Amino acid sequence: MSATSSSRRAALAVTQGDPRGIGPELILRACAAGKLVPGDRVFARRDVLEAAGRGGEPWAASGLERATSLLVGPEVFARSSGPRDPTSQVEALEAAVSALDTTTFGGLVTAPIEKLACQRAGFGFPGHTEYLATSSGVDSFAMCLVGPTLRVALVTIHVPLREVADRVSTVGVAAVGRLLGAALQRWFGVASPRVGVLGLNPHAGEGGMLGVEDAEIIAPAVEELSRWGSGRHIVFEGPLPADTAFPRHQAGDFDGVVAMYHDQGLGPFKLAHFHDGVNLTLGLPYVRTSPDHGTAFDIAGTGLANPSSMFAAIDLARSLASRAGYAD
Amino acid sequence: MSATSSSRRAALAVTQGDPRGIGPELILRACAAGKLVPGDRVFARRDVLEAAGRGGEPWAASGLERATSLLVGPEVFARSSGPRDPTSQVEALEAAVSALDTTTFGGLVTAPIEKLACQRAGFGFPGHTEYLATSSGVDSFAMCLVGPTLRVALVTIHVPLREVADRVSTVGVAAVGRLLGAALQRWFGVASPRVGVLGLNPHAGEGGMLGVEDAEIIAPAVEELSRWGSGRHIVFEGPLPADTAFPRHQAGDFDGVVAMYHDQGLGPFKLAHFHDGVNLTLGLPYVRTSPDHGTAFDIAGTGLANPSSMFAAIDLARSLASRAGYAD
Repeated sequence: MSATSSSRRAALAVTQGDPRGIGPELILRACAAGKLVPGDRVFARRDVLEAAGRGGEPWAASGLERATSLLVGPEVFARSSGPRDPTSQVEALEAAVSALDTTTFGGLVTAPIEKLACQRAGFGFPGHTEYLATSSGVDSFAMCLVGPTLRVALVTIHVPLREVADRVSTVGVAAVGRLLGAALQRWFGVASPRVGVLGLNPHAGEGGMLGVEDAEIIAPAVEELSRWGSGRHIVFEGPLPADTAFPRHQAGDFDGVVAMYHDQGLGPFKLAHFHDGVNLTLGLPYVRTSPDHGTAFDIAGTGLANPSSMFAAIDLARSLASRAGYAD
Repeated sequence: MSATSSSRRAALAVTQGDPRGIGPELILRACAAGKLVPGDRVFARRDVLEAAGRGGEPWAASGLERATSLLVGPEVFARSSGPRDPTSQVEALEAAVSALDTTTFGGLVTAPIEKLACQRAGFGFPGHTEYLATSSGVDSFAMCLVGPTLRVALVTIHVPLREVADRVSTVGVAAVGRLLGAALQRWFGVASPRVGVLGLNPHAGEGGMLGVEDAEIIAPAVEELSRWGSGRHIVFEGPLPADTAFPRHQAGDFDGVVAMYHDQGLGPFKLAHFHDGVNLTLGLPYVRTSPDHGTAFDIAGTGLANPSSMFAAIDLARSLASRAGYAD
């Protein structure tokens, strides 16, 4: 491929998120820090960015100037009525997704949205991920947390604990395992990835004494994954006791792990990467990342928001999008 | 209390564990490192210790000499037939518990046993903890993992994930919260402990959208604990989202946390403290610790076993037993 299309593939689309949250100010800080560059596009209302730059912080003026230079046109935001109208977070997202469909951005970075406000604004999805999957026509997708030492893909996410055991299926585990294995190769550049698949029960069931799903549901998925991976140089191991798998992952035994449910994966992940973790969506035709935190309404505008996760989300998206481009 | 009885209270009883595992060699290493001292007693078969000292490792000769000087008499081991007979692990434990009943050891440190072999030898309990609770006539007890930065008490332990939601009760959460709060004050010397109580579901149920147990079962327990703690200078907070509670604990917001189930607590704990974590039993009339690992039959006798957790278990037991003595 040509150098031109490769650099286009590494360009990023960034959405503002909820205008009342910390997303807009994190975009200004990312611009001030040189994380967003010419060629990237910011999908935000101009007055939302201006409001976020009013605190007089050191990054405000230069961040606002650079972010403004990357803005898409105001015609995108015809439904929202001003800088506090939460409708603009939906408009920004819809516009960015349209642009991803018709141009050559390699990655999308989304600032945090507020789900209830989105639904009131006519957004019919529980969150970013489901919307992006639907708009891409993708059935198989997964959430993956990425940090400097851990990569954790989840089989179930926002499910009451009582329902988790019934939601974990051989088909589902195998699907997430394939997505993670493929992403490690194509996006992360790991030639021969090793993937750990966690068990559902304590000690991965301890031979059936602590639950049957590890042997009956997860083990067959690992067998299926091992067959799939054998021609692709991807190795799967499991079901693994969750409590010892994370230290092994951090020590280098695995390039990523598949966790069965929210707290099993996010508990260890956030302990290791509270400020620098990134949420990566697997299965989309482009790279999509987001910071691993919410809108943080309570500290928006105070200058207290920690930009590390947003910076890491931008850096990761650009890095993965570049590599995905070269792999075309 | 007199200095004499205080020093007696800090003396430790140490059991050999499964003779085929790494327990006996870890006792020799602890002796060689000066972790066990005159006044402590080792409950082990002499020939088990001798077998563990045969590898020629640097610690073997001095460790064996010192451990032998702390041995109880061979009459304890009348049922086991030799250094490989797993029956001796049960005899060692029974003898140590008898000694705790009649003398003034302040703490018990148990090397790992193998449950199936114990049951074959007539041991009618799932593990150490249940046996010790029964022999002390204690109804309310809990397992607590202790490391340099985290202290995690568990409401349920070895339970299939599918059954966890039904096993978590207001009474059970409150009982474990009281045990942890009291231990933090009496044993750890924290004058005004702050205890975090985790939720059961992702995001602690997110207002009921991700499960009802956080609001219906755990929140009432936290209210009850708050009433109980208010006159005792113990503060309880919860139910907390599990994934953000551990970074907060590590940052100093809490002196300990109550986790609802195995992987929720042990996943983060073992990532932080894989080699230096200690298992502490709450609720017994004495301090009982054990290393946070199993028998490791596969590396027994190779010299590869990492002694950090056993050393930490001995250090913690002595430290807590000393403080418990002064508090009499």
